[in-house]
Amino acid sequence: MSKTDKLKARQPRGFVDRGPADVAATERMLSVIRESFSLYGFEPVETPFVEYTDALGKFLPDQDRPNEGVFSFQDDDEQWLSLRYDLTAPLARYVAENFDALPKPYRSYRAGYVFRNEKPGPGRFRQFMQFDADIVGAGSVAADAEICMLAADTMEKLGIKRGDYVVKVNNRKVLDGVMEAIGLGGEENAGRRLTVLRAIDKLDKFGPEGVRLLLGDGRKDESGDFTKGAGLNDEQADMVLSLAILQSGDVTELENIGDNRYRESNKGVLDGMRVHFGNNETAATGIAELEQIAALVEAAGYDRSRIRIDTSVVRGLEYYTGPVYEVELTFPVTNDDGQVVRFGSVAGGGRYDGLVGRFRPEPVPAAGFSIGVSRLYSALKAVKSPIVDARNELPLVVVTAMDNKSPEHMPAYQAMVSALRQATGEDGKPLLRADLYLGSSGFNAQMKYADKRGAICAVIQGSSEREAGTVIVKDLILGAELAAASRELKDSAEHKARQAEAQFAVPAAGLVEGVKRVLKRHA
Amino acid sequence: MSKTDKLKARQPRGFVDRGPADVAATERMLSVIRESFSLYGFEPVETPFVEYTDALGKFLPDQDRPNEGVFSFQDDDEQWLSLRYDLTAPLARYVAENFDALPKPYRSYRAGYVFRNEKPGPGRFRQFMQFDADIVGAGSVAADAEICMLAADTMEKLGIKRGDYVVKVNNRKVLDGVMEAIGLGGEENAGRRLTVLRAIDKLDKFGPEGVRLLLGDGRKDESGDFTKGAGLNDEQADMVLSLAILQSGDVTELENIGDNRYRESNKGVLDGMRVHFGNNETAATGIAELEQIAALVEAAGYDRSRIRIDTSVVRGLEYYTGPVYEVELTFPVTNDDGQVVRFGSVAGGGRYDGLVGRFRPEPVPAAGFSIGVSRLYSALKAVKSPIVDARNELPLVVVTAMDNKSPEHMPAYQAMVSALRQATGEDGKPLLRADLYLGSSGFNAQMKYADKRGAICAVIQGSSEREAGTVIVKDLILGAELAAASRELKDSAEHKARQAEAQFAVPAAGLVEGVKRVLKRHA
Repeated sequence: MSKTDKLKARQPRGFVDRGPADVAATERMLSVIRESFSLYGFEPVETPFVEYTDALGKFLPDQDRPNEGVFSFQDDDEQWLSLRYDLTAPLARYVAENFDALPKPYRSYRAGYVFRNEKPGPGRFRQFMQFDADIVGAGSVAADAEICMLAADTMEKLGIKRGDYVVKVNNRKVLDGVMEAIGLGGEENAGRRLTVLRAIDKLDKFGPEGVRLLLGDGRKDESGDFTKGAGLNDEQADMVLSLAILQSGDVTELENIGDNRYRESNKGVLDGMRVHFGNNETAATGIAELEQIAALVEAAGYDRSRIRIDTSVVRGLEYYTGPVYEVELTFPVTNDDGQVVRFGSVAGGGRYDGLVGRFRPEPVPAAGFSIGVSRLYSALKAVKSPIVDARNELPLVVVTAMDNKSPEHMPAYQAMVSALRQATGEDGKPLLRADLYLGSSGFNAQMKYADKRGAICAVIQGSSEREAGTVIVKDLILGAELAAASRELKDSAEHKARQAEAQFAVPAAGLVEGVKRVLKRHA
Repeated sequence: MSKTDKLKARQPRGFVDRGPADVAATERMLSVIRESFSLYGFEPVETPFVEYTDALGKFLPDQDRPNEGVFSFQDDDEQWLSLRYDLTAPLARYVAENFDALPKPYRSYRAGYVFRNEKPGPGRFRQFMQFDADIVGAGSVAADAEICMLAADTMEKLGIKRGDYVVKVNNRKVLDGVMEAIGLGGEENAGRRLTVLRAIDKLDKFGPEGVRLLLGDGRKDESGDFTKGAGLNDEQADMVLSLAILQSGDVTELENIGDNRYRESNKGVLDGMRVHFGNNETAATGIAELEQIAALVEAAGYDRSRIRIDTSVVRGLEYYTGPVYEVELTFPVTNDDGQVVRFGSVAGGGRYDGLVGRFRPEPVPAAGFSIGVSRLYSALKAVKSPIVDARNELPLVVVTAMDNKSPEHMPAYQAMVSALRQATGEDGKPLLRADLYLGSSGFNAQMKYADKRGAICAVIQGSSEREAGTVIVKDLILGAELAAASRELKDSAEHKARQAEAQFAVPAAGLVEGVKRVLKRHA
């Protein structure tokens, strides 16, 4: 093959490779989340990456082809298969298929990648990781309360301080009741209801004035782009907006709007909802459910700074049927446009009583939530959580191969690296990672390799050491420090003494002890 | 929707769901393997599940459609994408794309699912997990030696005893040399060479006589099915077979064939190879490489019971160019046909110097191996490795909800389960998992739920306990024991004393202490 015929190595658009720091940190995150979910009695389950497209509910209406949002392919018997686009639809299929064998209510958790066949963009990937917990078969909103507390506990276990997160809870039934009250009930208004929900969802971004435009005729943004509104009249828009801002979470920004009385306690918000919206039956049911949730979380010691009733939460997905929740991180970060904003949502969920029932003769109530793992990872880095700290790795030692041109000396180097790998501390656990240089480059390149790998120590044996039966241990951290010292300092006696510590010979049999000396220095 | 319109919940063919025991055990396995690979200086990397089909090298010759063995779909710009079918091809793409940024030699490990678009069958899945380690950029067979030692160490860390596994090493160059010697060299004989390799690979299954048939005209099995052979004449077949059985690993079965002298040490086997096949230049190079590998592993303390030169190993994949290795578990298991057989291969790999070079102007040597995680999991269960033991989970306590018809008592139950979840031992670590019953069924169904979930303890508060300010702690393990006792025993004073221990009341504030008493009893 000529050089010009070579294939170009390229990652598909919207997919990413992840290096050692990302992989290790994610692994630790997942393990903390697993432990947290497990304490609540959730058990793991894993479904495959591929499902029949019909089980995912992802066929285009009135067509035989799957929705464009999912990656799909046909099996040899022409049935359509799709890559899962979330972890909820496969769970619904799993529970329905194994209904009689499972304990009910069934508490389970699942983690894994999901796939979206969408145009990739900045921060928009076609493969990303979710971590879900669900309770299937519990109609009581005590299940929703458990999930909200689980979400709060998990944030704290991940190193997000109390006050830096809040779990906001609302109820679709209240929203639905308000829609009914303004004449937007019924199947024929499903589209407009969705537009209203999307408008409320923008409260954080555009403020109440912006949302009012989106509820009415529409809104033109700074660039001149126009978003068509829901077409509500002023009275209708007022009603919807007054619900959304009853307790919006962001008191400072909105303190001149709505009724401040209702913001000081969950009870206050709930009273406000009853006064303004409680005469609609659907809304009243929703408010009663929220009152139960508030009572449950308060009994378990979760105050309003951790879990709060918040009328601005809507959650986009159409399948929610009751309480909806969102975990928001409240600490400030600077966004891509240089503005300081709250970090925002990292997890969310709600009650979806219809999803499992698609497959079963009986109704099957269910509630769950999903953590966006990649987004949460960015958050943990922002708050410098110890869980994503790279220093969790054992220190690395590189054994160099001075005479790698002839294979005869390699067995001796091999014996050294093997001895180092067996070095353990007093607790019997491994002390270090050890790497033998296996390339064909000379000594300088080998030292550069040790640097690039982040080694803290190198082991060297040339011909004179071999004859003397010794090995040189080189402390790369101290060495770098000394090399950076000023000329003046370099002439001092202290400097020379430290140089002797930065690189010293030990008898070959004392290699492990010599390396331990360096590790201890930088522990 | 009428009942008959309901969707049928079904898993796609060849894909499986995995329950809590499987998921937890696999998680622990992966964590042991990660730690083992990490000690050798390998660092994690993760590539996406989807690659451009051309990067995987999976287009059918002279066609625009991908190979049937991979799951493929077209992107919106009509480029073909495929699900990865192994973890080696994506690594080659990754290294080629990030060549300058990576330390070289580049040691990395990766774990994850791979996908094969094949007809599913017993034990043949379309999604399965691999765990790979590779060293890219090292031409020296010291890299191959490192991988063999890593494989041996990893087996032991997973709980497979020394003597229960062996890493077998061979070299494709020796096989290629023998092929050349019998006139099967050159591009035009590639197909026949593959047939010869596949025949040798059946040595374990069919014995030397069966392999001789496959090397010659062909072999008819018990059912009468005929497999066409490689068409070698007797002299050619003798030469190939004598290499394969020079050291076959299974001395007992084959002790009347081949030359026993060569089986007692790596040196013996290597001497035998030199005597019989060393006059071919390619074979001689291969033998010299195997001698180096033997010297390296022996210097590091790995004897022939752990890593051995074995001429029967071939590995099916066409891309291997040098040493090949296979990790075999040697303990006996009973197969589906009731026969006692050795467990067999759980991992394998080799040198693939051409794979990264497809993308790069310079040649890039590489070697690696892959663990079949699901197969290894079966093996660990067979040897009862503590790593896959279900008792690694914390004990589960179920708080029942006696009065779940009215929501007013739920907050009190919620407070109990929250207190239990915060219970820690002297080391500050959680002591138990706690679950609150969230369904609507009555007390008997709740106790069945606790059993089904494997709870060791249930917590009960009815109206009389509530009035008295107490809670009942019920030891489900002791309770089951006592229930199974004989009638005679049940009348004894001892039995009655134990019954008092199996179910006792504590003040509500002493709930956690009461539960700890039960946990301690069964620790």
